[in-house]
Amino acid sequence: MTATMAPTATMTAIEIRAPGAPEVLVPGIRPVPQPGPGEILVRVAAAGVNRPDVIQRKGFYPPPPGASDIPGLEIAGTVVACGPGATRYGVGDTVCALVAGGGYAQYCPVHEDNALPIPAGLSFVEAAAVPETFFTVWTNVFERGRLRAGERFLVHGGTSGIGTTAIMLAKAFGATVYATAGSDEKCDACRALGADGAFNYRTQDFVAEAKAATGGAGVDVILDMVGGDYIGRNYEAAAVDGRIVQIAFQGPSTAQVDFRRLMFKRLTHTGSTLRSRSVAEKAEIARALADKVWPLLAAGRCKPVIHAVLPLDQAAAAHALMESSTHIGKIVLETGQA
Amino acid sequence: MTATMAPTATMTAIEIRAPGAPEVLVPGIRPVPQPGPGEILVRVAAAGVNRPDVIQRKGFYPPPPGASDIPGLEIAGTVVACGPGATRYGVGDTVCALVAGGGYAQYCPVHEDNALPIPAGLSFVEAAAVPETFFTVWTNVFERGRLRAGERFLVHGGTSGIGTTAIMLAKAFGATVYATAGSDEKCDACRALGADGAFNYRTQDFVAEAKAATGGAGVDVILDMVGGDYIGRNYEAAAVDGRIVQIAFQGPSTAQVDFRRLMFKRLTHTGSTLRSRSVAEKAEIARALADKVWPLLAAGRCKPVIHAVLPLDQAAAAHALMESSTHIGKIVLETGQA
Repeated sequence: MTATMAPTATMTAIEIRAPGAPEVLVPGIRPVPQPGPGEILVRVAAAGVNRPDVIQRKGFYPPPPGASDIPGLEIAGTVVACGPGATRYGVGDTVCALVAGGGYAQYCPVHEDNALPIPAGLSFVEAAAVPETFFTVWTNVFERGRLRAGERFLVHGGTSGIGTTAIMLAKAFGATVYATAGSDEKCDACRALGADGAFNYRTQDFVAEAKAATGGAGVDVILDMVGGDYIGRNYEAAAVDGRIVQIAFQGPSTAQVDFRRLMFKRLTHTGSTLRSRSVAEKAEIARALADKVWPLLAAGRCKPVIHAVLPLDQAAAAHALMESSTHIGKIVLETGQA
Repeated sequence: MTATMAPTATMTAIEIRAPGAPEVLVPGIRPVPQPGPGEILVRVAAAGVNRPDVIQRKGFYPPPPGASDIPGLEIAGTVVACGPGATRYGVGDTVCALVAGGGYAQYCPVHEDNALPIPAGLSFVEAAAVPETFFTVWTNVFERGRLRAGERFLVHGGTSGIGTTAIMLAKAFGATVYATAGSDEKCDACRALGADGAFNYRTQDFVAEAKAATGGAGVDVILDMVGGDYIGRNYEAAAVDGRIVQIAFQGPSTAQVDFRRLMFKRLTHTGSTLRSRSVAEKAEIARALADKVWPLLAAGRCKPVIHAVLPLDQAAAAHALMESSTHIGKIVLETGQA
C-alpha cells in the first residue's frame, strides 16, 4: 500500500451462509481486504442491491474466478488506501465503483479504472445506486444495441433499477421510449420518468401495443431481462433492422422460437453480462460513462431512482423487498460510515 | 429508351406453370421488357441458378412486389438498351447483375446500379455465377458478420454456390476457414478451395470438430443456411463475441434454443435476405464489391466454381440437379446468345 487511512483490521460483511432464502444473508466478521496492484480500497458508505445478488444468494450465480464470495456489485464511499501503482485517486477522494463482488461490506477493494468520481450533487446512497445499472444500460443499449437519437426503444421491467435507468438515459439521448411494467401504478412511474408509453404486461399485449404506438413499424432496440416467450415476442415487436439485447433471464432461458422473423427483418439478437467482463473492458465502459453520462448526472438531467435505503445488516430484508417486486427503482444498503 | 440495339419484340423465358416439381418450369414466349428509369436492358447470355429459385418454383417464396414472376436472380450479358437517366453503361457493354427476378430469360432489365462490369478474364457463364453468391457472402459475412483477418470462420454447406464463394472470399481476406459438407468428397472439395478444415456432417459432429480445430475457443463467424437444430449448435460452436448470420432455412426455421450461451458468450445472431433489399441497398453492396472483390476476381485470386452449364430451356433439369445436392459449386443456364 502506498497510502492509507489505517482502517481497522476487521470489518463487518454480509455472508451467504448457504444457498437459500433471504435469511441466509447474515453479517459476519472478515479481515479488511488489502488493495492489490492498481486497486484502491474504499470505505463503503453505501452499496446497491441488484437482481444478480439475489440469484447468487440462491446459489445459481457463483462469483467469477478471483471475485469475493461476499455479494454486492456496486459501492460508493471514500478511498482509504491505494495499492501499488494506483494513481488516479488519493486517500480521502469519494468514488463510486463497479465491483465483481464484495460490495455488502464495510471495506471493498476495486481496480481504480473501474471507479469513477461521485457525480456532483449526488449523495453516497445515490452514487451507490448508479454503477451497476448505468454500466449495464450504457454497454448494452448504446454500445451493443447501438441506440441512436430518433430511434424507438423498449425496455422490459421499466421500474426496475435497470428499467428506470434505461428510460432516463434513452430519453436523454433522444430516443422515443416505451416500457413494460407489472401494474398501472408502475406504468405511471415509467411515464413520470419520461417514457413516451408504458404497457401493463398483466393486462396488455406488449407486442400489439408497441406496434400500435409506432404506427405498425415496431421498435428499433429492445432491452430484455425476461427471456422465455418474450424472446419470440421481442422478434415480433422489433422493427426492420431491430436489435434485441438480452441481459438476464427472469423467465426460462430456453424457448421455442421461429427465426424467420430474425432473418427477414434483419434483426440482431445479442446479449451480455457485465460481471464476467475484464477490468480493462469495464474500464472502457467507465471512460465512456465519464465522458457521456456523468455530465448528465451532474446537471441533474438524470438521477438514480431510489426506492428504499436499509442498513447493511438488514441485507436479508433488502433481498426480500427486491423479490417482492413491489419496488420502483433501486434498493440501497447503508453502512453508517460516511 | 435513350439507346437501343433493337431487340425483337418477344423473347423466350422460363415460366413457372404452377407450383411444383422441376417439370413445372417450361419455356414460354413473353414480350421483351422495356428498361425503366435508371435501368438497362441486358441481352442475357447466362443466368445463375440459385436455391431461392427452387423455393420460388415450389410456391414458397413469392417474388417481392414489382418483381418479375419469371425466376432467376443473376445474369450476365450485353447491354442492348438504356432507360431514361441510365448513364453508367452504353449499348454493347458487358455486365453481370443481381436482379429481383426475371433472370431465366433472353432479356432482363436491371437498375444500372445493381449491375457491375464483367470482371476481367471471366466468361459470361462465370460472370453469371458471381452476383447472387458474392453479394450474399459480402453483405452477410463481411458487413453483417464483420469477419476480420485472423478470425475463424465456419460456413455450412461448403460446396454450395454460397459455400464455395464464402470459403474463397474468407480465405482471400485472411480468415481461418472451416466448412461443413455432406460427404468426404465434398469435404475434399472444400479443402481444395482453401478451407483449413472441412467436417462431414453425416459422420462428424461439427460442434466438436470446430472446437477441436480452434483449441476449444470456437469460431468467430458462422454463415448458416440450415437452421433447425443447427441454431443451438451454432451457439455452441461459436467463440466469445461470435457472430452467426442466418441466410436461409433448409431445415425448420423453428427451434428450441437455450439462449444462455448467446448472453454469456455475447454472441450476435442476425440474418438477412438479399432479394427484398432496395435497389439503393444493393447498389451499396455493388460498390463495395467493385472496390474490394472485383480486383480479386480480375487477378484470379478467386473464381466462381461452376458445376454444370445447361441450356436455358433445360431449366427443369438444372433444378433437378440442384435438388439432388450432388453438385459442387454453381449451376448456370446459357441462352446461346453471346
